[in-house]
Amino acid sequence: MIDTATTLLILDLFGIFFFAVSGCLLAARRNFDIVGSLLLGSLVGLGGGVMRDLIIDQGVPLAFTKPIYLLPPVVAALLVFLHALGVQRYRRTLLVFDAAGLALFCVTGTLTAHAAGLNPVSAALLGLTTAVGGGLLRDVVANEVPQVFNPRGVYAIPALLGAGLVSLFLSLGVFTPVLGCAVALLVFALRVLSLRYGWRIPLAGRTVSTNGD
Amino acid sequence: MIDTATTLLILDLFGIFFFAVSGCLLAARRNFDIVGSLLLGSLVGLGGGVMRDLIIDQGVPLAFTKPIYLLPPVVAALLVFLHALGVQRYRRTLLVFDAAGLALFCVTGTLTAHAAGLNPVSAALLGLTTAVGGGLLRDVVANEVPQVFNPRGVYAIPALLGAGLVSLFLSLGVFTPVLGCAVALLVFALRVLSLRYGWRIPLAGRTVSTNGD
Amino acid sequence: MIDTATTLLILDLFGIFFFAVSGCLLAARRNFDIVGSLLLGSLVGLGGGVMRDLIIDQGVPLAFTKPIYLLPPVVAALLVFLHALGVQRYRRTLLVFDAAGLALFCVTGTLTAHAAGLNPVSAALLGLTTAVGGGLLRDVVANEVPQVFNPRGVYAIPALLGAGLVSLFLSLGVFTPVLGCAVALLVFALRVLSLRYGWRIPLAGRTVSTNGD
Repeated sequence: MIDTATTLLILDLFGIFFFAVSGCLLAARRNFDIVGSLLLGSLVGLGGGVMRDLIIDQGVPLAFTKPIYLLPPVVAALLVFLHALGVQRYRRTLLVFDAAGLALFCVTGTLTAHAAGLNPVSAALLGLTTAVGGGLLRDVVANEVPQVFNPRGVYAIPALLGAGLVSLFLSLGVFTPVLGCAVALLVFALRVLSLRYGWRIPLAGRTVSTNGD
Repeated sequence: MIDTATTLLILDLFGIFFFAVSGCLLAARRNFDIVGSLLLGSLVGLGGGVMRDLIIDQGVPLAFTKPIYLLPPVVAALLVFLHALGVQRYRRTLLVFDAAGLALFCVTGTLTAHAAGLNPVSAALLGLTTAVGGGLLRDVVANEVPQVFNPRGVYAIPALLGAGLVSLFLSLGVFTPVLGCAVALLVFALRVLSLRYGWRIPLAGRTVSTNGD
Repeated sequence: MIDTATTLLILDLFGIFFFAVSGCLLAARRNFDIVGSLLLGSLVGLGGGVMRDLIIDQGVPLAFTKPIYLLPPVVAALLVFLHALGVQRYRRTLLVFDAAGLALFCVTGTLTAHAAGLNPVSAALLGLTTAVGGGLLRDVVANEVPQVFNPRGVYAIPALLGAGLVSLFLSLGVFTPVLGCAVALLVFALRVLSLRYGWRIPLAGRTVSTNGD
């Protein structure tokens, strides 16, 4: 039987891989070279987790102590370079991989924060930060408006829901690896459906023309 | 009588609120949705303080341990959503709230750095970093050139002055909460006046056309 | 005879200076004012090292404890302001100074990470992160696509080579300050030659038009 620590590591590595693919796809769409692809993939895949590890203050972030964390970005850059993902539509594929990374990271981020002793509210918040952080870094360094601010589809809401559920299950002492995967699937499904059907929530304020003041 | 720790908490929460409003107003102007507004408000309001807390290395940043720090961004997003600020001109209102956040954070940032044992020069520098950091994050993630680099008006100078004064008063042992509020008012006044009257300081180098090399 | 710690400090200060000049030159090209120039120079010069120090988790970053670290950005902003570098071509000069900062930081970053007890692979990775980080911050906050993603010339490869060599020499116990300077020169030469002759490596994926999907 697989224990929680191993589950966490495996989910974390898959989350890194999914986010890294999204970074490498963006690199390909922007005509960056293979090294730029590897770097952007690494930044997206590892950035959220490094932020998380800096915030929980438990020593050097995992990405800089366990070399295995470097493997998923390398695989991602290679797959994108070799067109192994058979992508015709970079942007759509990017969003699906991004959704998978989001789904896994809101679970693993919350688990890590809980293990570091954060209270349930803060653990869920850090899960959300971890999940949203990587994609935010990807879009910011590639000079695009982050997905999380795109009013088409929901992004932070499923991540917050997932992080909140994991935190609740942990508080109640009923969390299991299987439950964690179920939550990740739910988050992924909500994100992908929201893109597919163009779900929208109310805007931040009155609609204004952007060139007005 | 209110002690310094309570004063610090209250000023910090107000600073977070002011910066959060600036983030939510930018979100509204850019037609982000209400969740994007809450996230951008949180990033602006809490980002500078999280940077500060990471740098002083005193454990998990306050924003991730005290849930009350989440309240100001929620209130800010709601007020902007409900148009309670009666804004006609997003940009002008944004700059006023940004100035208020800047004024409070150069004071609270320096106080926190001093309490963590930094030397007076470094404490003032960290106060400046805290004050400038939130607005920098806001503009960077929303893909705009940061206010701090806008040659119209002064931004970093009043913040550095405020941080320097607080650090000086702390070194001399004469700092009081009232004095802290007076410094914040001075910083706010200088920033707003500089915008109102379009104060300028010399450019970084020879004026060049941006498309030349 | 100069010891390793002093060598490290001197190389670090020169690296900060070179990166700071690149920041101040970009500020001049974008018509920022002198304070914006000082801030951008400080961010570029000190940002990579602050990231490095946060990651190795050895207390407050050097830039916030040793005021001497503030000197190079001040000198850089003044030199650019006074046109002392005699620049006709901001962009070309910027890239040369950026290359010099890159060359020194991949060496000092790896040395610092090694001294903090990281394993050889992680030490080289952190050296790369330190070297690439400052320039990434510079371009991101100034709202430009980072140099590291520019397919013309190589950027991360020489930095990774330099960091890897230093990490190897340290592991073998044969590192000396002179060897460190030789590695920095090699990295600088590779970067500048790659720009001069327009070296290119394969793209991240199929070349696509950026407005397609």
